[in-house]
Amino acid sequence: MTFTSRTPRVVAARKLQRRRDRDQAGRFLAEGPQAVREALASGVVVELFATAAAFERYAELAAHAPVASEVSDEGLESLAETVQPQGLVAVCEQVDVSLRDALAKQPRLVAVVAEIRDPGNAGTVLRTADAAGAGAVIFAGDAVDPYNGKCVRASAGSLFHVDVVRTAIDVVTPLREAGLQVLATSGYGADDLDTLADDGALAAPTAWLFGSEAHGLPEELLDAADRQVRVPIYGGAESLNLAAAAAVCLYASARAQR
Amino acid sequence: MTFTSRTPRVVAARKLQRRRDRDQAGRFLAEGPQAVREALASGVVVELFATAAAFERYAELAAHAPVASEVSDEGLESLAETVQPQGLVAVCEQVDVSLRDALAKQPRLVAVVAEIRDPGNAGTVLRTADAAGAGAVIFAGDAVDPYNGKCVRASAGSLFHVDVVRTAIDVVTPLREAGLQVLATSGYGADDLDTLADDGALAAPTAWLFGSEAHGLPEELLDAADRQVRVPIYGGAESLNLAAAAAVCLYASARAQR
Repeated sequence: MTFTSRTPRVVAARKLQRRRDRDQAGRFLAEGPQAVREALASGVVVELFATAAAFERYAELAAHAPVASEVSDEGLESLAETVQPQGLVAVCEQVDVSLRDALAKQPRLVAVVAEIRDPGNAGTVLRTADAAGAGAVIFAGDAVDPYNGKCVRASAGSLFHVDVVRTAIDVVTPLREAGLQVLATSGYGADDLDTLADDGALAAPTAWLFGSEAHGLPEELLDAADRQVRVPIYGGAESLNLAAAAAVCLYASARAQR
Repeated sequence: MTFTSRTPRVVAARKLQRRRDRDQAGRFLAEGPQAVREALASGVVVELFATAAAFERYAELAAHAPVASEVSDEGLESLAETVQPQGLVAVCEQVDVSLRDALAKQPRLVAVVAEIRDPGNAGTVLRTADAAGAGAVIFAGDAVDPYNGKCVRASAGSLFHVDVVRTAIDVVTPLREAGLQVLATSGYGADDLDTLADDGALAAPTAWLFGSEAHGLPEELLDAADRQVRVPIYGGAESLNLAAAAAVCLYASARAQR
């Protein structure tokens, strides 16, 4: 039997494109072979929807799904948010953990996206933090939903590699109590990243706080952090974009912590 | 007199949204107060179009334009590619220089975007290279037009700060003859960025080659470069996105060259 866009299980899955429904169900959608592979490896796939062609092409993925359902091309299109999901969309259990559980593992590098509403930016920071070896990425305050489709895609699988936490904005105290120095990024920060690296200050376990490109970090986080750090600007640019700034900071820590 | 979307000068300016017309005219469009301010400072503005409200709000910008024309709201909308250009669009002379002229200035840091077709990625690398103190950014081979509206916006003014070059793909020999070591980025590179930094190899004048996220660098550039360099991956991510990888490499050089 081939499902269509009107088959009740497809209709139910499609609702997960909306945050409210994701929050209620505690589930989300992952699309495309890379994300589906990582979701399967994490054991969070509830049901895999695949077109006939995708069933053939990705037989090993379908074989590992607890439930694999064939959908028509239009049925798959109704589930997918991208033009080319390559025939695969999986319903997954949400993977986030509590702040307490994430910090109990004593991560040496943590990234906090504070009130970042752009899903592409948040997903890119998640991917970069994973690459730099961070143990946890914390979505703090009124941040984008990490299960937003665009965020999931920008994370390129990293959503399944690190501890993802959703929590309130007042994260500095618990981070510090977990033995992490808390470094807030700011274009006007008193400390220069290169100087901190020279002084050996980045070798300590560190949580980096990143704010939105438009508004920066909320005052309360800037004030509560141990240091306000600026990435040095050597040329005429006013600033770096968020993805670039996060990459420079997280890799400076990764390098110092080797 | 208030121009509308049908006023011939507005119609002519609007054509600059297309690459072919930009190439023919040797001009492009910059929108929004930040880009217009930088274009004016560079002396490349031919004509500024502004709404009545923008004329009032940005009077000092309008005063510095050689020609400033009032357009209706719908006239401005017809010129703008973004939803909120804040009432300003400028026709500018193209700013790129020849490879020979850019290299004659003996830049110590250069970024090459080779066959990168995504305008947002190319513009972000341009911005990051400027922030890291690069003297030139080279669009090589079948790369996006640096004057593509999305690239101009992603560059956040950096298009006007560094020498932008458009040239053929065979850039390695001229770069090397200009005294630059040529480092090609590759996920499979034999050299690790952190090891190069440890060994002091990044203090020398350097040109970084970046390829597209989907296809990487063309073989001929990988083979011709002095080294193939990988950004170390400390976690579970397969790779970094282009903006993040470029930021880590360019800032590693900037730090070593201080």
